[in-house]
Amino acid sequence: MKSLQQSPAHSLDYLEGEDGIRVPVTSIKLDASPDGTPNPPFQAYRTVGPGSEPERGLPPLRAEWIQAREDVSAYEGRERDLLDDGRSAVRRGAASDEWLGERRAPLVALDGRRVTQMHYARAGTVTPEMRYVALRENCPVDLVVSEVAAGRAIIPANINHPESEPMIIGKAFLVKINANIGNSAVTSSIAEEVDKLHWATLWGADTVMDLSTGDDIHTTREWILRNSPVPIGTVPIYQALEKVNGEASALTWEIFRDTVIEQCEQGVDYMTIHAGVLLRYVPLTADRVTGIVSRGGSIMAGWCLAHHQENFLYTHFDELCEIFAKYDVAFSLGDGLRPGSTADANDAAQFAELDTLAELTKRAWTYDVQVMVEGPGHIPFHLVRENVERQQELCDGAPFYTLGPLVTDVAPAYDHITSAIGATEIARYGTAMLCYVTPKEHLGLPNRDDVKTGVITYKIAAHAADLAKGHPGAHERDDALSKARFEFRWRDQFSLSLDPETAEAFHDETLPAEPAKTAHFCSMCGPKFCSMRISQDIRDAYGSREAQEALAGMAAKSQEFLEQGAKVYIESIPVGAPGA
Amino acid sequence: MKSLQQSPAHSLDYLEGEDGIRVPVTSIKLDASPDGTPNPPFQAYRTVGPGSEPERGLPPLRAEWIQAREDVSAYEGRERDLLDDGRSAVRRGAASDEWLGERRAPLVALDGRRVTQMHYARAGTVTPEMRYVALRENCPVDLVVSEVAAGRAIIPANINHPESEPMIIGKAFLVKINANIGNSAVTSSIAEEVDKLHWATLWGADTVMDLSTGDDIHTTREWILRNSPVPIGTVPIYQALEKVNGEASALTWEIFRDTVIEQCEQGVDYMTIHAGVLLRYVPLTADRVTGIVSRGGSIMAGWCLAHHQENFLYTHFDELCEIFAKYDVAFSLGDGLRPGSTADANDAAQFAELDTLAELTKRAWTYDVQVMVEGPGHIPFHLVRENVERQQELCDGAPFYTLGPLVTDVAPAYDHITSAIGATEIARYGTAMLCYVTPKEHLGLPNRDDVKTGVITYKIAAHAADLAKGHPGAHERDDALSKARFEFRWRDQFSLSLDPETAEAFHDETLPAEPAKTAHFCSMCGPKFCSMRISQDIRDAYGSREAQEALAGMAAKSQEFLEQGAKVYIESIPVGAPGA
Repeated sequence: MKSLQQSPAHSLDYLEGEDGIRVPVTSIKLDASPDGTPNPPFQAYRTVGPGSEPERGLPPLRAEWIQAREDVSAYEGRERDLLDDGRSAVRRGAASDEWLGERRAPLVALDGRRVTQMHYARAGTVTPEMRYVALRENCPVDLVVSEVAAGRAIIPANINHPESEPMIIGKAFLVKINANIGNSAVTSSIAEEVDKLHWATLWGADTVMDLSTGDDIHTTREWILRNSPVPIGTVPIYQALEKVNGEASALTWEIFRDTVIEQCEQGVDYMTIHAGVLLRYVPLTADRVTGIVSRGGSIMAGWCLAHHQENFLYTHFDELCEIFAKYDVAFSLGDGLRPGSTADANDAAQFAELDTLAELTKRAWTYDVQVMVEGPGHIPFHLVRENVERQQELCDGAPFYTLGPLVTDVAPAYDHITSAIGATEIARYGTAMLCYVTPKEHLGLPNRDDVKTGVITYKIAAHAADLAKGHPGAHERDDALSKARFEFRWRDQFSLSLDPETAEAFHDETLPAEPAKTAHFCSMCGPKFCSMRISQDIRDAYGSREAQEALAGMAAKSQEFLEQGAKVYIESIPVGAPGA
Repeated sequence: MKSLQQSPAHSLDYLEGEDGIRVPVTSIKLDASPDGTPNPPFQAYRTVGPGSEPERGLPPLRAEWIQAREDVSAYEGRERDLLDDGRSAVRRGAASDEWLGERRAPLVALDGRRVTQMHYARAGTVTPEMRYVALRENCPVDLVVSEVAAGRAIIPANINHPESEPMIIGKAFLVKINANIGNSAVTSSIAEEVDKLHWATLWGADTVMDLSTGDDIHTTREWILRNSPVPIGTVPIYQALEKVNGEASALTWEIFRDTVIEQCEQGVDYMTIHAGVLLRYVPLTADRVTGIVSRGGSIMAGWCLAHHQENFLYTHFDELCEIFAKYDVAFSLGDGLRPGSTADANDAAQFAELDTLAELTKRAWTYDVQVMVEGPGHIPFHLVRENVERQQELCDGAPFYTLGPLVTDVAPAYDHITSAIGATEIARYGTAMLCYVTPKEHLGLPNRDDVKTGVITYKIAAHAADLAKGHPGAHERDDALSKARFEFRWRDQFSLSLDPETAEAFHDETLPAEPAKTAHFCSMCGPKFCSMRISQDIRDAYGSREAQEALAGMAAKSQEFLEQGAKVYIESIPVGAPGA
């Protein structure tokens, strides 16, 4: 399969690093400026990977790197259990669409070894994954190593998911976004989910979570992992719950543990674990407007209530750490008590759980297991910042991974927007990864269009936060697009945008003719009324040396004004003005 | 015409005030809670007005109030000039769709009188407009009077637009939004523009700007004003430019003045005047990435360059003030040098112009003329706040009215979103009104769907800012919707949302059956897997007195944790953890 492209002006290119490391980028061809000056192709961060035939999957990019470390061995793995694919698979003796591509024996750490990127970083070992990431982020590899060692960044990279292209999640790096896909009891085929995976990464998803809760959970995940160039996350309690016929009270540590190992062997890169929902926190939610809205949180709360026992994910947390260290699975510590309405934001239940997540973060680090911490939810805009600052302080800078947050509850069908507002704010202050929200949030399951809208909306939030953080180079795409806009290079505006096809389609609704795309005006004002053209005249007028000197004088004068600030005019307020 | 409604659950109701003042609100009918407790109807701020037959227009709500002040007289008005409607009207001897409804003789202040709401407020006169606004905002009328007197709020209310329902723009009040409509050289009929007006106010536009630049400008505006329950703003330089065949250099003060009087007599409530684009500021834009992007700004810059003279809007500003004071037209001081790209944000040109706008604000106030100040534009997120704080300081709190700002340039086709992010931030810190941006921004002219998307996106930003500012009562709609969500009152969720029809349509895509709307689960998880249901169980479990006591104990414990903050866990970091 040819790799998907967003636009005919885009093509796959590579950054070439040391030791043969090659990082794919999207090369965006640009036209020359009107004065004939060529514009070099723009190289953009690329998540869609090299492209795969779904039936065959991707080549195992990292396989040699993993083997070269000589700290893993292949083993037979857990026996196939048809119940992994749900009761209909048991009935029919197979999943509805078995994976027929290559099946590699699962790898596991040699006895006594830890095979996590955090372990290597702490030991001062610079892995190819770290070098790949440094090239991809255009930063020194030392920064990658030190941030991973300190737990302030993670490289989700299960040794059984060698197909993934290494990426890093941490506040010193570009803000990342996650897209959720997955079937439900109601809908959708395996092929559709693989398509959504590729679709989400085409538009920029940095990781994908498979949140399937319907049939064929195991096999859907197999197809997704074998075809995914990005890390895959899951919420294993969803599958465990399916195995006990949906009865939360029937869950056990043993069933959960078995599900986790099943997923470790398949190659899941990070797992949401709701270990912070402690029995004693559950009553704190009783007076909320919207109680517990996290599915995982409510399952564990339900279990705690049914058994009057402490959450087994908490009591068995060290065992989970031991398992994760053997496969390099990262924790995504779930915020099961996140607020489901702005009324419940930043309350005792939410922050009590965060305290526990901080404790668990540090416990996982003693096993060299990588950790990120999940965050809310629904938070009014002025309370957003406190969430990330508190999390960063309590969790010693472990990456924060938030869902939005939504800054108002009144706009179902627009919650990609209500949440992108909160997402920009929370990322600006240090959230490392944003979980997208689609227009269907609260209402239904996202379709292909919703996935795209969600991803692009979150690329906007992540990129706006990168700009606000002054991330090196983040402004280059904005500047290239703005320059193209000013020079009426319409095609370049489209191809530099986050969604070239929609930008072009919108343009064409008003001025469809091909020449309009090279016209030195646009559909809003027409040829006579064009502010951009007048600006060009100004630039032409002030291009002379005389004018340049005048300009210099003006600039100095203006600077003087700015330095004096309001004072100039405050002293000259006309008598009788109010508020003086 | 029956007034438009967003949903069958919505109906027109009134708040009844003193002296017979009645303010329309939208009453949203709600179902009872599952336990049988009735939920009273929710009363929402309403902008769509009482509904009108487009050919007849609206009743003149304020006519008696205006007459009762005995400070105006009717006069013949300016003579009809077919060129007001463009060259095609001259050719055919009429506009393409003449206004045949009632024509009232224009009113003007008696000699030596000022008829502005600011004048009355400063004199301590409490007008019906102020009382209407206080009822509408649910605030003391004294607050309205004092904010208007101080120039920190405006009530745009041309005496020749008696159809408008008074509203207030100021940071002490609800954040307002404006929708731009208007034809262009390329497209659209008068009927379409009237339809867009009603459509925009149906979804929540607090004011509408008619930015027509095509044929029939005068007559289109007449239809709009006679049918508009919200204040109408214009940019008169657009029409003046049409009168000189699109040649900026042919503009004169006399043509502009005549156009302004034409619009004052029709009833335009506020006008954008680009009087801050001074000759000496023009060179400051020469090195920008995107020069001057404001149409009005570039027209005036072009004029200044062509004539090597100071901007005539600046040199004749006092005459404009005298005119505005006679009709109660408010200034919207245009930011003709606003940045058109994030690269140009907060630069010398932009802030130099702001200094001049501050000077002009105070000059207008000496004439008791109401003023708001326009703001950018394209601003990276971290530089947004400075814009409003600087404007508020320099302009002594005059209302700020901003376009977005867009926080990144890379997402044409999604600029309603890139700008809503900036709009929420800038409104949080005191911007009083937000000018919407539609998905077509930079690409083409908005159609009906784009207008709706733009308005709802900006209602989100404005409302999110109201919540963030802690505006009294702002959270009530969020809480009502969240409660409905938690209680699975699906229909109430839809009718309380900003866009009931889209919310319901999205829901129905996944679970279309009518019973699903009363089901105690939703399409995301299905019946067995419902976090909301589990939360209900928790509430039931902790509803007992014993559990309530346990809850009290837990809450105290949790509070203790929160007070100790991170310390609890920092002391228990396992040895060997990083970053300690």
